[in-house]
Amino acid sequence: MMQDLESKVISLAICCGDPSGIGPEIALEATYRAQQAYAKDKNPVKFILCGPSAVWERAAAVLSSRMQIALADLDCVYTAKNVAVLPDYGHATALGGQIALSALDDAILLAKSLQVQAIVTAPVCKHSLYQAGVQVPGQTEYLAQAFLVPRALMMLCDTHLRVILHTIHIPLRRVFDYLSPNMILETLQLADRYLSPLLKLAHARLALCALNPHAGEQGQLGDEEICYLSPALTLAQEQGLLASGPYPADTVFYEAQKGRFDAVIALYHDQAAIALKTNHLDSGVNMTLGLPVIRTSPDHGTAFDLAGTGRARMASMQQAIHFAVRAAQGRFLKED
Amino acid sequence: MMQDLESKVISLAICCGDPSGIGPEIALEATYRAQQAYAKDKNPVKFILCGPSAVWERAAAVLSSRMQIALADLDCVYTAKNVAVLPDYGHATALGGQIALSALDDAILLAKSLQVQAIVTAPVCKHSLYQAGVQVPGQTEYLAQAFLVPRALMMLCDTHLRVILHTIHIPLRRVFDYLSPNMILETLQLADRYLSPLLKLAHARLALCALNPHAGEQGQLGDEEICYLSPALTLAQEQGLLASGPYPADTVFYEAQKGRFDAVIALYHDQAAIALKTNHLDSGVNMTLGLPVIRTSPDHGTAFDLAGTGRARMASMQQAIHFAVRAAQGRFLKED
Repeated sequence: MMQDLESKVISLAICCGDPSGIGPEIALEATYRAQQAYAKDKNPVKFILCGPSAVWERAAAVLSSRMQIALADLDCVYTAKNVAVLPDYGHATALGGQIALSALDDAILLAKSLQVQAIVTAPVCKHSLYQAGVQVPGQTEYLAQAFLVPRALMMLCDTHLRVILHTIHIPLRRVFDYLSPNMILETLQLADRYLSPLLKLAHARLALCALNPHAGEQGQLGDEEICYLSPALTLAQEQGLLASGPYPADTVFYEAQKGRFDAVIALYHDQAAIALKTNHLDSGVNMTLGLPVIRTSPDHGTAFDLAGTGRARMASMQQAIHFAVRAAQGRFLKED
Repeated sequence: MMQDLESKVISLAICCGDPSGIGPEIALEATYRAQQAYAKDKNPVKFILCGPSAVWERAAAVLSSRMQIALADLDCVYTAKNVAVLPDYGHATALGGQIALSALDDAILLAKSLQVQAIVTAPVCKHSLYQAGVQVPGQTEYLAQAFLVPRALMMLCDTHLRVILHTIHIPLRRVFDYLSPNMILETLQLADRYLSPLLKLAHARLALCALNPHAGEQGQLGDEEICYLSPALTLAQEQGLLASGPYPADTVFYEAQKGRFDAVIALYHDQAAIALKTNHLDSGVNMTLGLPVIRTSPDHGTAFDLAGTGRARMASMQQAIHFAVRAAQGRFLKED
């Protein structure tokens, strides 16, 4: 399916995120720059801003000291009742949560009606969402519900490294409750099913990260590798998956960056986050695997303290747009 | 004390490590290169190889295809009965463990008699040590015992980042048993006491790494930050330490690399190891804090599969020697 898209126009929905954070300004500038960059590309790309026009106008005003963005040149969609007053910058509000979600709803509608092939979301604030009455931890879960997907995977990635998370936003202590061979096997199966076509591979090479120091050193430093991880890998291998490990966490990310694996499966949030953010804080992308639409996001938050200053770095947002375009074009390759 | 040493000759003991591993060859080549490099330095540095002459001769033979090392130009100490036959390359043996430990014993004697200011150890194999009848997990613990130090700290470092480990070689599940405020406080106190003089600071700026994702997000993603880590930091601050946190693991290492902190305190092995090795696998150094002698080591193992080939990378061993020299000269500064 992706191959067929290569010569077609690709359309992306760009969601404003929480209007009290840096989302609108980084999304607008990154979209504007991407539109200019892809104007020269042989494969046309169309960007659709999702969110109230007042949000984008305020963002354009923030950026106006260093660049003139003609909003008239950008497509904009917003089906909810437009807002007369925007929430102030700098803190969580119910209105901020409502605006972020209505923009996301528009993007979901565009995707369901096949008007866009990818959604790129600016950051939201969990507390704004709660105040708006929505009990999901973030946009990933909201999208999974909207598309009736039982379990989507979070993949953090940059140009050198892809890490898929087995568990995400739970206390470290609770990670031990998610280590049964069947639970690990399910993550390996989903990773294989969703990532392999993206990379145009029959099976992606998946490296399972160990839990304990030195991968447990034959049980001397912990037995989860022997009791849970290795059995899960055996089951996965019997099903034809190219899954291997468990590998010590202190070398597997290095080896993956060198090209030995297509992705690392991290067992908990910080395994993935430390590997990705320690040296490249600005350029990481959060990609959701398993939705019927491509979805990316910068891997940082709303940065309320920087909102409205125009000083927020947009490298991660730019990378999120770039990865979404490439994935939609069927060219999401490591070398890109 | 260190300031006084700046104009004096610095002497280092270089231990061969397990003779069946890559230790002797990387130690010999790195020592030889360091001797040449420091020959031009205004501060003289003397290197003393510790280990049987047969071990160093075999290492020189391994390296002979690409460089001629005149062993006669290098000082060598070995007080134990010299060995007629060396263990083969490639696996753990009691003899390998015995040789590694007798070399280390010589270095300890040299340090106790103030003939060396620093010890640099090539890798040993835990299984060789066990077969040799020594029940310590590694050289760090052996050195702490020899110098009657109740608790030495392991610090992993490269030129950009220093990470001190609160727990080291224990299962991840057991880390939760070491999180009491008093235990954390002790690590912060020792880190302050041992690291600050090395950096010529009254108090080093210590960043305590959080345990849970997003530092627990006000208790929503785990309560160890609230119950244990923050109280420990309060106690430390009351004692005048420049300790802060707990910081999310996905940004604290980045911030430390940028110069905001002098060291990060990691709660468990892989927090430190992922941060240091993901992007710089070859150049990390293991430095022991709290001994009356400076001690460094490469942060990798014996690599039995590469032993005797001359193909092992010695960047980490070179860095270990470099850091030991600089620390002994009272010049262990981040900018060096």
